[in-house]
Amino acid sequence: MTKTIFEDLPTVRFEGEASENELAYRWYDADRVVSGKPLSEHLRFAVAYWHSLAMNGSDPFGAATIHRPWMAGGDPMAAAKAKADAAFDLFRVLDLPFYTFHDRDIAPEGDSLKESLANFHEMAEYLGRKMEGSKAKLLWCTANLFSHPRFMAGAATNPDPEIFAYSATTVKHCMDVTKALGGANYVLWGGREGYETLLNTDLKQEIQQLGRFLTLVVEYKHKIGFEGQILVEPKPKEPTAHQYDFDTATVYGFLKQFGLENEVRVNLEANHALLAGHTFEHEIATAASLGILGSLDINRGDPLLGWDTDQFPNDLQSMTMSMYHVIKAGGLGKGGCNFDAKVRRQSFEGEDVVAAHVGGVDLCARGFLLAAGLIEAGKYDQVVAKRYAGWQTPEAQAMLNGSMPLEAIAAKAEAEGIDPKPRSGRQEQIENLLMRSL
Amino acid sequence: MTKTIFEDLPTVRFEGEASENELAYRWYDADRVVSGKPLSEHLRFAVAYWHSLAMNGSDPFGAATIHRPWMAGGDPMAAAKAKADAAFDLFRVLDLPFYTFHDRDIAPEGDSLKESLANFHEMAEYLGRKMEGSKAKLLWCTANLFSHPRFMAGAATNPDPEIFAYSATTVKHCMDVTKALGGANYVLWGGREGYETLLNTDLKQEIQQLGRFLTLVVEYKHKIGFEGQILVEPKPKEPTAHQYDFDTATVYGFLKQFGLENEVRVNLEANHALLAGHTFEHEIATAASLGILGSLDINRGDPLLGWDTDQFPNDLQSMTMSMYHVIKAGGLGKGGCNFDAKVRRQSFEGEDVVAAHVGGVDLCARGFLLAAGLIEAGKYDQVVAKRYAGWQTPEAQAMLNGSMPLEAIAAKAEAEGIDPKPRSGRQEQIENLLMRSL
Amino acid sequence: MTKTIFEDLPTVRFEGEASENELAYRWYDADRVVSGKPLSEHLRFAVAYWHSLAMNGSDPFGAATIHRPWMAGGDPMAAAKAKADAAFDLFRVLDLPFYTFHDRDIAPEGDSLKESLANFHEMAEYLGRKMEGSKAKLLWCTANLFSHPRFMAGAATNPDPEIFAYSATTVKHCMDVTKALGGANYVLWGGREGYETLLNTDLKQEIQQLGRFLTLVVEYKHKIGFEGQILVEPKPKEPTAHQYDFDTATVYGFLKQFGLENEVRVNLEANHALLAGHTFEHEIATAASLGILGSLDINRGDPLLGWDTDQFPNDLQSMTMSMYHVIKAGGLGKGGCNFDAKVRRQSFEGEDVVAAHVGGVDLCARGFLLAAGLIEAGKYDQVVAKRYAGWQTPEAQAMLNGSMPLEAIAAKAEAEGIDPKPRSGRQEQIENLLMRSL
Amino acid sequence: MTKTIFEDLPTVRFEGEASENELAYRWYDADRVVSGKPLSEHLRFAVAYWHSLAMNGSDPFGAATIHRPWMAGGDPMAAAKAKADAAFDLFRVLDLPFYTFHDRDIAPEGDSLKESLANFHEMAEYLGRKMEGSKAKLLWCTANLFSHPRFMAGAATNPDPEIFAYSATTVKHCMDVTKALGGANYVLWGGREGYETLLNTDLKQEIQQLGRFLTLVVEYKHKIGFEGQILVEPKPKEPTAHQYDFDTATVYGFLKQFGLENEVRVNLEANHALLAGHTFEHEIATAASLGILGSLDINRGDPLLGWDTDQFPNDLQSMTMSMYHVIKAGGLGKGGCNFDAKVRRQSFEGEDVVAAHVGGVDLCARGFLLAAGLIEAGKYDQVVAKRYAGWQTPEAQAMLNGSMPLEAIAAKAEAEGIDPKPRSGRQEQIENLLMRSL
Repeated sequence: MTKTIFEDLPTVRFEGEASENELAYRWYDADRVVSGKPLSEHLRFAVAYWHSLAMNGSDPFGAATIHRPWMAGGDPMAAAKAKADAAFDLFRVLDLPFYTFHDRDIAPEGDSLKESLANFHEMAEYLGRKMEGSKAKLLWCTANLFSHPRFMAGAATNPDPEIFAYSATTVKHCMDVTKALGGANYVLWGGREGYETLLNTDLKQEIQQLGRFLTLVVEYKHKIGFEGQILVEPKPKEPTAHQYDFDTATVYGFLKQFGLENEVRVNLEANHALLAGHTFEHEIATAASLGILGSLDINRGDPLLGWDTDQFPNDLQSMTMSMYHVIKAGGLGKGGCNFDAKVRRQSFEGEDVVAAHVGGVDLCARGFLLAAGLIEAGKYDQVVAKRYAGWQTPEAQAMLNGSMPLEAIAAKAEAEGIDPKPRSGRQEQIENLLMRSL
Repeated sequence: MTKTIFEDLPTVRFEGEASENELAYRWYDADRVVSGKPLSEHLRFAVAYWHSLAMNGSDPFGAATIHRPWMAGGDPMAAAKAKADAAFDLFRVLDLPFYTFHDRDIAPEGDSLKESLANFHEMAEYLGRKMEGSKAKLLWCTANLFSHPRFMAGAATNPDPEIFAYSATTVKHCMDVTKALGGANYVLWGGREGYETLLNTDLKQEIQQLGRFLTLVVEYKHKIGFEGQILVEPKPKEPTAHQYDFDTATVYGFLKQFGLENEVRVNLEANHALLAGHTFEHEIATAASLGILGSLDINRGDPLLGWDTDQFPNDLQSMTMSMYHVIKAGGLGKGGCNFDAKVRRQSFEGEDVVAAHVGGVDLCARGFLLAAGLIEAGKYDQVVAKRYAGWQTPEAQAMLNGSMPLEAIAAKAEAEGIDPKPRSGRQEQIENLLMRSL
Repeated sequence: MTKTIFEDLPTVRFEGEASENELAYRWYDADRVVSGKPLSEHLRFAVAYWHSLAMNGSDPFGAATIHRPWMAGGDPMAAAKAKADAAFDLFRVLDLPFYTFHDRDIAPEGDSLKESLANFHEMAEYLGRKMEGSKAKLLWCTANLFSHPRFMAGAATNPDPEIFAYSATTVKHCMDVTKALGGANYVLWGGREGYETLLNTDLKQEIQQLGRFLTLVVEYKHKIGFEGQILVEPKPKEPTAHQYDFDTATVYGFLKQFGLENEVRVNLEANHALLAGHTFEHEIATAASLGILGSLDINRGDPLLGWDTDQFPNDLQSMTMSMYHVIKAGGLGKGGCNFDAKVRRQSFEGEDVVAAHVGGVDLCARGFLLAAGLIEAGKYDQVVAKRYAGWQTPEAQAMLNGSMPLEAIAAKAEAEGIDPKPRSGRQEQIENLLMRSL
Repeated sequence: MTKTIFEDLPTVRFEGEASENELAYRWYDADRVVSGKPLSEHLRFAVAYWHSLAMNGSDPFGAATIHRPWMAGGDPMAAAKAKADAAFDLFRVLDLPFYTFHDRDIAPEGDSLKESLANFHEMAEYLGRKMEGSKAKLLWCTANLFSHPRFMAGAATNPDPEIFAYSATTVKHCMDVTKALGGANYVLWGGREGYETLLNTDLKQEIQQLGRFLTLVVEYKHKIGFEGQILVEPKPKEPTAHQYDFDTATVYGFLKQFGLENEVRVNLEANHALLAGHTFEHEIATAASLGILGSLDINRGDPLLGWDTDQFPNDLQSMTMSMYHVIKAGGLGKGGCNFDAKVRRQSFEGEDVVAAHVGGVDLCARGFLLAAGLIEAGKYDQVVAKRYAGWQTPEAQAMLNGSMPLEAIAAKAEAEGIDPKPRSGRQEQIENLLMRSL
C-alpha cells in the first residue's frame, strides 16, 4: 500500500472561531453537547465516495481536470483498493463519523453481471476490513443504475424487463452489502427513472414498474432483517427531462399509491429542492409534516443556473432555517448529513477536497447551533403559537375534527354575522429577527 | 335593459379554413362528429366570467385600461345585472356551450356576510332566468376566497378559524347555487392556500385545515345530492410564495392523505403547469394515470416570464399533445375546456374578447382533430407498444405482479448471466412524425 | 394639519447590537467614520415615496389591504398634502438623509395635461417647504410614465408620437422640479419601454425613439445647468414581456449607440438583476468596470418567484458582496441606497413600514462594515493580485497593449513550445473566507 | 479506406409533403426559387462536425452511449481520417452545402503545441482533398478553447498570460486553415470566457483581455486578406456561471467598447437565446436592428430545463418567426444555418443522425417558406405600418431627428393641451393571423 494523497494531511481539529488555520473546524466541536447529545450525533456527517474520490472534474464542455492515482489505469481492482485506501485516509483527516457510496464508486464494472457482482463483494469486504481500523461507519449505500448505457432509458422504469431484472439484482446485492457493513440506511435515487419525451412513454406502466420495484426492496429488507431505513431521493429533472420522484410531495403521493408510506422515507438534497422550485427548508418541513423525513444530502445549487451544481454549501441563512426544521422534526434519527457536494473542477488538489468539507461542516454546525439557539429563545414558537391561537377554542376544534358539517358551520357563521378582520402578519419584523440572530 | 357591448356582433359561425372573416371559426365545426360524438361534446368549451367580463386590464404597474359600462359605478346590483346581460350576449356571440364563474364575479360583496350571500343568491337566480333563454350551461362555479383582504393569509388555511368559517359558509352557498343552476362541476382553487414565509407558518396545521375543508365539501356534496365532480385546481405559486396545491402529483398525495382520491379530481391549467416546471401534457397524462383527470383551464403562459400571464393559447404543438392525452384518457367526461385566459390590457375593446376566443377555440379544435388523427393512424401506439413489448411475456409479468420476490429475480438474472443491450430510442424520428402531422 | 400615522413613533436611534428594541438601529451608526467618512455619507439612504406612502397592498389576485388616511378619497390635493405630511414624518422617524419620488406619487393626475402639471408644481413647492423643516434631501426624482393607460404601449417608445411628446413634457417638468428641490440625480426607468410581442413591433424604430428621448434629457440637463447625474434603471421584463433596458450591459451598449456613455449612468436594483439572470454584485461590478455605476435601489427578489417582489433585503452575504464592489468602485458618489422595497401586503400597519426600513438599513450597514473589513484585511486583494500576477511582466503587457500582433504571439509561443499548466482555483477556500467573515 | 457507417445510406432527396419515406425531405426543395434565389442559397445549411461526428452521448450522469469506429482507440490520426471519411459521407447523404468544425473535432491534441498544430494542419489538408470530391463547403471554423484542462479558467480571459498566448496561437492557425479551405466565416465562442465566482475575478482586466484578443483576430484577418466574417457567439452561462458574451445586446456593447462593431457580427443560437431569457427571434431582430446579424446555430432548448440541450428544432411557430426576421434583415449573407444540434444519447445509430437532420432541415425550410409567404401577403407589414403611421408627419419627425429640444416639445404639447388616447393593440387577432398561417 503506497502513500495516499491525503496521507500527509493532519486530522482536522476543532480550534474555535478565532483560528487562522484554513484546515481547522471553527464551529464544529464534535463533542459539544446540545440538547443532551453531542453535535456529532445530531449531525451524523458523511463523506460521499463519488464526489470526493471518484469525480474527475469533467463537465459537458471539458475533459477531466482531477487526476487521482487510482484513475490512471492499470488493474481496476488494484485501483479500487488504492481508492479505498485514500478514502479512509480522507475520513481520518476529516474525522467525520460516516461515509456513503454507490456500488460502482467502490468497485469496477466487470465484463459480466457475475464479475461485476464479484468485484463489488470483494471490495465490500475490503471496505469492511478498512472499517475495522477506522471510526467511519456506513450511513448509506446506493446502486448506480444510471451511468452505464444499459440504463439510458431507465432502470426500474425501463421499457425492457431485462433491465428491470438487472437493476433488481444489483439492488439486492447492494442491500446485502449494506446490511453486512452495518449501514444505517439504504437509498434509491431514480437517476434515469423518468422520461425524455412523452411521445414514446407509457407513464402509467413506468410508474407501476417503479412501485413494484420499491415494494420488492421493502419486502427484501424485512426478509433479511435489515433494520436501516429505506430512503428515496427526490429530484425533478436532470439527467432526464422529467424524473418521477420530482419532490417530497410527489414521492409521498407515490408511496401512498403503493402503500409504502410507513416503510420508506426521503433523502432530501438542497440542490434538488432548488431545481424543483422549492427551498431546502420547505422540503424538510414538508417531509416532517408527512412523517417521512429521512436524511439529508448537504450541498447547494446556484439559483441562476439550471443544473445540479452540487456545490459545497455556503448560505448560512438557508442552513439555519433547514436545521431549524430538522430540530423541530425531532432530528434526523438514523439519517445524517451527507456531503453530496463536489469541489469545482478548478479545485483539483486533494487539499481542496479537505478544505471544502471543512467549510461545509462548519456551516452546518454553525447553522445547527444558531437554530438550536432560536428554538431555545422561543421567539418563533411564540410567533406561531400566537398566530394560530384562535384554533385552540372548542368551537374552532369542532370545525377541524369533523364534528361540524359544512352546513352547521355556515348556519353558525350566518347567525353570528361574522366579519373577521385581517391582522398584520409582521413579516418584516419576523425576518429581522432571523437576520439579527446570524 | 340597455344595449350590451356585444349586442351588435353576429354569432360566430364555422366557415372553414379558407375563410377571410376574422370572427369566424375555421376549425371548430361544433357538430362535426369525431369518434361518435360531435366536437362540441368532446371539448365542452366554457367562457370564464372573470376574465371576459370582470377583468379591467390593470396590472402591478398600471391602472385599468378596460372600461365596461358595468364598471362605471352606480348601484352594484344593477351593474351586476348589466354585466350578466352582456355575459349572455357574449355567450350568444361565441356560441359555446358552457360558462364558469366565481361568486364574486356575478354578485358584489355586500356590507355584511348576510348581504353578500343575498346578493349572490339574487344574481344566481337572475343567471338562472338568463339561462332559460340561452344555450349556455354552467360548467362550474367556484368561490373567490382570495381577493378580499380578509383572505390575505389564506381561506381554509388561515390562522384565524373565523376565516375558515367564513370560507366554509361561502363555499356552502356556492355549492347550493351550482346545484341549482345544474352545474357539472364544482372547483376549488386555493388562491391563497399557501405561505409567504415558513418563519410564521405551521405547515402541518394548515394542511390539516385544508384536508378538513375539502372533506366538508365532499360530505356536503353527497348530502345535497350534487352529482357533479369536485375539482381541485393545482398551482405552485402566485399569489403566495408557495401554494399547497403545487401540481397534480402533490394534489394526488394530498387526496390520498385524506382519503379523498376517489371523490376529487383535478382541474388543470396550462399556465399553472408551466409555473410548476411541467408541460401541460405532462399534467394531463399524470392525472390520467392516477385516475383524477377532471377538467381543463385553457390558456398559455410565457416560458420566459415567471407569472401567470393567462394568455389565450397559440401553440399548436402543445395543444395537439394535450388533446392527445385527453383522448387517450377517455375524454373529459363531465369536465370541459374553460378559457381561463384574458385579453392583453392593450386589447380593451369588446371585439378583442371575441377574437381571442375565436383563436383559442380554433386552436383547441385543430389540436383535437390532429390528435384524433394521430390516434387513428396509430403510429404512436405502435411506437409505444413495440417499445414495451418485452413486458408482455409471462416472465416479465411475474416480476411486475409481485409473484417473484427480489431474491428470485436476482437468482434468475445471475443464473442466466443477462446482459441487456440498449436500443435506439429514435426520439428524433418520433418527433419528426409529430411535426409532419401539424 | 391633522396627526399623521407616524407621528407617535419616536425617531429610530442607533442602540448597538445588544438592543432589544425592535425599532432601533443595531448596525447603522450614522456618524461612525469609516475610511474617512461617516456611514451616512457612504450609504446615502433614501426612503421611496411610492412603496412607503403610495402602495396599497393590492396584487393581481387581491384588493388593497393597506388603507392610509390619504387614500380615503376626498379632495386629491388635500390628500396629497396629508400624504406629504406623513412622508416627512416617516423621514423624521427613520432619520435617513434622502428620499425619492415619481411625479405621480406626490401629486394627483389632473383632468388635463395643464392641470396635472399644475398639481405637480404645487406639490413640489409644498415639498420644498417641508424640506426646509426637515433633514431629508432629494436623492432623485423620476416620472411615472407607465401607470396611466395612455402609456400602455410605452412612453418614449410608443407608436404614437403624441405620447412621446406627452412623456417628454412630463420629464421636462420633473427635471425642473428636481433641480429646484436640489435633487442629486434624475432617474429614468423604462416602465413600459419594451414590447409584448414582436409581431406588431418595429424594434429599430422604438430604439431610435428611446435614444432620442434620452438625448433630449441630457441636452436639457446641460441647458438648465442641472448638476445631478442622469441615471437609467435597467430591468429585463415586467410589466412588458421584454424591456429594452434589460441589464447593465445592454444599457451600456445602448448608451454607446447614442454616444451617451459619458453622460448617463445606471441605477441598479437587486430584484431587477435577479430577473435578468444576474446577481446584484455582478451588476454593480459590471457597471463599475464600464464606468457607469450611478446609484442603487435596495431590495431583494425571491429566486423561486418570477416577478418583482421588491422585498426588503435580508441576505447578508449578497449585501456584503454588493457593498464590497461598491467600495472597490470608489463608492456611490452622487448616488445612494434607495429602498425600492415594499412591506408585504399582510404588513398593513405604519409600524411595519418603519420596522422594515430598520431591518434593511441595518443589513446594508452591516454588509458595508463587513465589506470594508474584508477590504482592509486585504485577503481578497491578495487572492486576485496573485491570480493575475503573470500579467505584470513586460511580455504579458505587450500582448495586452497591442504592441504584439497575433502572428508574433503565435511565433513566440511556438518557438518556446509553451505548455501552460492549470493552477487550483481554490474556490472553496475563497468562499470559506467569506463565510467566516460574516 | 474502409466502409463508413453512413456509406449504405442513399442521398436524401426532396419528395414532397406526401412522402412516406422517413429519410426524405418534404419541404426542403433545395432548388426551389423564392424571391429570386434557390432555397439552398437562402438557408446555407451546414452540418456540425462536433455534434454529428465527435459526440459520444455521455452526460454528467452517464457514460458514452454512442460508439463510432473512430472512437475505438488506435492511432489518433488514422482515427481522425476515418472520422473525416465518415463526415464527408454524411455530407453526401444529407446533400447540404456546408459544414463547420472546431480544430479539435478534426484533429487530435498532440503531446505538444507543435504536434497539435501539425496534426491540425495535416487534417486540414486532408479535409481540403476531401472537399475536392464533395459539394460540401466550409461555412466556418472555430477553435476549441474550452475542453482541455489548460482552459479551465478561460482562454483569452485566463489569469495566466501563457494561456492567452496559447489561445492566440491556436486561433491564428485556425484562421489560416479557414482561409485555406475557403471558409465563409470564422467564429469565436467564449466557452469559458466568464467566471465561476466574482470573489477571485478581476472583471475589468478580463474584459480588457477579451477585447484585445478580438482586436488581434480582426487585425490578423485584414493582414492575411481573409474575406469572411468574424463572428462572436453569445451565450449567457454554462459551462461558467457567467459568460461575458451574455447575449446580442451585451456583445454589441462589448464591440462598441473596443471599436469593433463594424468588424464583427454575431452567430446566434436558439438554445443560447433561451438560456439568456430571450426568444430566438428576439436575438435575430435585435442583431438585425444593430447591424450585426451574422449567422445562425440551429437547434432548440427546453424551456423547462436549465442547460444547453442542443436538441434538433421542432417548433414550427418559433422557426417561422425566426425566419421572418432573417428575411426582414435581408437574409444571412455570408452566414448560414448550422445544425448545432445533437441526437439524444438514446439515439445512438448513424441513421438517427440522418433522420434528425432531415427533420431539422425540413422545419427550417417550412418555416422559411411560411415566413416568405407572410411577408408576401404583407399583413404584418400593414399592421406595423399602421401602428407607427403617426411618426411619418413632419412634426413627429422633428422630435425624432433632434431639431426640437425637450423644452420646445413641452411648450408645444402644453399649448395644444394634448390628451393622447390609447388604441387597441389587437394582439390576439395578430397572433391568430400567425396561427392560421401555419
